[in-house]
Amino acid sequence: MSKLLDQVNSPKDIKSFDVPRLQELAREIRDCILDVVLKKGGHLSSNLGVVELTIALHYVFDFDKDRLILDVGHQCYAHKILTGRKDNFGTLRSKGGIAGFPKREESIYDAANTGHSSTSASLACGMLRYGHDGAQIVALIGDGAMTGGLVYEAFNDVKTIGKKFIAVINNNDMSISKNVGSVAEYLRDLDSIRQPFREYGIKYYGSVDGHNLQDLIKAFTYARDCKNSIIINVHTQKGKGYEEAEKFPDKYHSYSPSHSDGMSFSSCVGKKLLEIAKKDKRAFAITAAMADGTGLDYIRRELPGQFVDVGIAEEHALCMASGMAISGAKPYFAVYSSFLQRAYDQIIHDMCLNDCAITLCIDRAGLVAGDGETHQGVYDLSYLRSVKNMTIAAPKDFEEAQDMLEWSVHFDHPLAMRYPKYVPVHKYSSHAPIALGSWEWLAHEDNEVVVLACGAVMNDLAISLHEKTGGFDIVNARFVKPMDGALLKSIANKKIITLEDNVREGGFGSGVAEYYISAGIPVPPMKIKAVDASKLTHASLPELMQLNGFTAEILQKDISSFKS
Amino acid sequence: MSKLLDQVNSPKDIKSFDVPRLQELAREIRDCILDVVLKKGGHLSSNLGVVELTIALHYVFDFDKDRLILDVGHQCYAHKILTGRKDNFGTLRSKGGIAGFPKREESIYDAANTGHSSTSASLACGMLRYGHDGAQIVALIGDGAMTGGLVYEAFNDVKTIGKKFIAVINNNDMSISKNVGSVAEYLRDLDSIRQPFREYGIKYYGSVDGHNLQDLIKAFTYARDCKNSIIINVHTQKGKGYEEAEKFPDKYHSYSPSHSDGMSFSSCVGKKLLEIAKKDKRAFAITAAMADGTGLDYIRRELPGQFVDVGIAEEHALCMASGMAISGAKPYFAVYSSFLQRAYDQIIHDMCLNDCAITLCIDRAGLVAGDGETHQGVYDLSYLRSVKNMTIAAPKDFEEAQDMLEWSVHFDHPLAMRYPKYVPVHKYSSHAPIALGSWEWLAHEDNEVVVLACGAVMNDLAISLHEKTGGFDIVNARFVKPMDGALLKSIANKKIITLEDNVREGGFGSGVAEYYISAGIPVPPMKIKAVDASKLTHASLPELMQLNGFTAEILQKDISSFKS
Repeated sequence: MSKLLDQVNSPKDIKSFDVPRLQELAREIRDCILDVVLKKGGHLSSNLGVVELTIALHYVFDFDKDRLILDVGHQCYAHKILTGRKDNFGTLRSKGGIAGFPKREESIYDAANTGHSSTSASLACGMLRYGHDGAQIVALIGDGAMTGGLVYEAFNDVKTIGKKFIAVINNNDMSISKNVGSVAEYLRDLDSIRQPFREYGIKYYGSVDGHNLQDLIKAFTYARDCKNSIIINVHTQKGKGYEEAEKFPDKYHSYSPSHSDGMSFSSCVGKKLLEIAKKDKRAFAITAAMADGTGLDYIRRELPGQFVDVGIAEEHALCMASGMAISGAKPYFAVYSSFLQRAYDQIIHDMCLNDCAITLCIDRAGLVAGDGETHQGVYDLSYLRSVKNMTIAAPKDFEEAQDMLEWSVHFDHPLAMRYPKYVPVHKYSSHAPIALGSWEWLAHEDNEVVVLACGAVMNDLAISLHEKTGGFDIVNARFVKPMDGALLKSIANKKIITLEDNVREGGFGSGVAEYYISAGIPVPPMKIKAVDASKLTHASLPELMQLNGFTAEILQKDISSFKS
Repeated sequence: MSKLLDQVNSPKDIKSFDVPRLQELAREIRDCILDVVLKKGGHLSSNLGVVELTIALHYVFDFDKDRLILDVGHQCYAHKILTGRKDNFGTLRSKGGIAGFPKREESIYDAANTGHSSTSASLACGMLRYGHDGAQIVALIGDGAMTGGLVYEAFNDVKTIGKKFIAVINNNDMSISKNVGSVAEYLRDLDSIRQPFREYGIKYYGSVDGHNLQDLIKAFTYARDCKNSIIINVHTQKGKGYEEAEKFPDKYHSYSPSHSDGMSFSSCVGKKLLEIAKKDKRAFAITAAMADGTGLDYIRRELPGQFVDVGIAEEHALCMASGMAISGAKPYFAVYSSFLQRAYDQIIHDMCLNDCAITLCIDRAGLVAGDGETHQGVYDLSYLRSVKNMTIAAPKDFEEAQDMLEWSVHFDHPLAMRYPKYVPVHKYSSHAPIALGSWEWLAHEDNEVVVLACGAVMNDLAISLHEKTGGFDIVNARFVKPMDGALLKSIANKKIITLEDNVREGGFGSGVAEYYISAGIPVPPMKIKAVDASKLTHASLPELMQLNGFTAEILQKDISSFKS
């Protein structure tokens, strides 16, 4: 019945539509998004919110030559449906299918591969500086992303460039959760401020109803035809058109049809942090706009005085936490691995060189399903292991994660604990007490081959094979820095296979080799099984595991070939 | 003759001084700074500019309980002289002496170890959030640092914290060079703007003459006694009181008494980039406020249309460069190694996942003399090696650096070339043509021990020993990623010593071990000689080399012990 959408194979096809037909098109696109996302999962609220906005952009601009840069990028569904990808839209987020984020390799209409927040204005500045003569460069940026400092570094540059820059603020008063801080207030009041953004030489076009196509077209036409750099403030409603998502936009931010209501690392970390904070007034839980995703909702509700949400501002989160730690507090910063990258200099310069007792609770570490390569948490072991004063832990299951957090209370130095979005399968009969750098034997029969498994996913992999075949030993390598030197020495005459859901370069296996070399011990025969970054894509976790050689079958072959 | 200064052993001692005596104290402090810095080197212009400002802060506030956070930190000299370190001030920047930046381990008056830009407001937010009840938290921030986005992430948080935040802007219209962009303009005009910073809930106190002690004391007293968060705008002159530095503040930003006017990696890279840009209109040289330090002054003068200075905004520099590269430009971002850390997510997310043909010209890589641990360029090999699509090169001398840049013009992927502030000693008779991943034999006599040397400093070290003793082979390992697999295979039966001025964890030597493990070749007997981050401090290059075991004598022992 999607009559109008059937006629739309490229954005050109909507140029002749009148407003009522565009409205009908919006309804069809919304149905298409709902249909696919409720089945396959994906970002729902944000995409439902920008349907009219996206139609109007494609109606007014010519993105065959103009460029549309989607900040963060997860609001790209209507854009993808309008730009020749509607027939494959049912493959959303599946391996080989349509990605959930913009991909240059997928379409000329995707201006840049984005996935993280607050980059669009900078990318736009670059596109203004080179190429695209006579073209219009449009950055679509959520108000949540306006907390990120990078936006202001870019705005600072606009006047110097001296070409027309267009930003459309998708203003829905939300990041994933409600926006926080002064910028959010400022953005709520833009219309009452005399010439907002004037210090950047950017004109302001006052609030537009983001679900009124006529108004949107008028605003974008004005922006297209004016000579100045301009910011258009568009008010949208997250989840628009789907009652449940309108009511609970955060719940439907990233929707999964098969979500379990059971425990996750996030929730067990969140619960433990609440318990710790109740006993220890020095303890604070910090998030950069991800309280729900990281399990900090427990502490937010019960102990708001020991909860801090700084908005999408990972650098500030960690630098501010350093200020707290220097003052004697005990901050826990819960953050997704791929977003922690944004605070790397703060990890080195503020947290670690000041030897601050901050604990990084690194969520979504390792392979991440669905979102694709921008969201993979596969670099953290490498970029953290090199930093002075840093300790790194990776628990095998929920209980060990909680034991580590309990242990962290009395650990007075930088600490990082990484864990995946993954529910461990194996039930462990016992848990060795946590001591700095201590590993744990999970199978210890003096076999020729020892598997050193780092983290929950890898321990499960090793154990699942061991239950079938036996014939090799397993160590839960639960600290990546420092390592268990005594244990490593004791297996120097064995053959070693290291398992990690981090890239090979500089990761856990690399650290094992370094240990032997530093200790002057010949490196035992070794295989490093690690992530190959070139194989990362949007796919399910089992698919990503398969692509990177993390299956019991392949591990079995690795072990066998080692023995022969 | 320093009569007044003789009476000042702690900030308390100036509380009873009247303004004329404080003025006399300022003269004495300025003389003391000039005396030491002209002999020993250090940051001159910035320190001469804040003498009165620092005296007034210590006069008004009580930094026994209040906290003074120095953004960047290199403007700390008057502060150090006033806080009990005047007698040792002559040891400035020497090993074991007074550091050139704030150090908590040196004094309770140093609130945080700083060295990089734009962190003070965030640190202050953390200190407001925990501890320091009834204390005043003061961030002293240069106008140059106000370009860095982190400042706005912090400002966004101030109102939420709900406690009084004090920022003093040291407004001299300079970063190291003249400030650029809209923020600079805005800061120049603050007095004419109605309620600047009001969106952050921060009161503004209009321009104060930063060399008038009476006005400064009045302003700071107002700030101390008012209830609101407040920003005080203080106009200072960089280099104040020393005619040469007033005239050429950038030249005297970081002064070295023994500066050579000869070639450096910076200047040879800068000259080569100018040559490339003349031939190739796609080529752009980008800096984050460091045109002089990175050698980009050549291209700035001769080809300003292909030169971009974004101010202190490393994230934007690289994200913007990604936008340029996506549009077909060929950007070269010249940046100090320790500051490149600030753009790590942009390296991964924008540059590398978009496979952008950006070249990072990483200056001040390896061990850095004088400035101490915040400025050491010892992490880059580790944090870059793990990133998808990245290629890493490290030339042995100026000519090879220029050859690599010439080669980079036709290389269409992310590239990082790292080099130190160091003038190579050895004159090489020939230079093997650059090919991706190719290494070069410098001494090839089929000895038992092969030294793989990474970068200019390490090649010089190996050669200087070889010239004395011979008896080992040397390879110039000029690509760190990819490595020269054929060469590594050919020496799999040797004993290998790797040399790098990067930390051990995940660095070059680690990569060599990984190579053998991945190739299924037993790791040959190996020693990794690398930087030990725990030994980094402010010291001369020879001292830092000694501390990390990089002397011909120690290398000789390593080789001998290997043979026996």
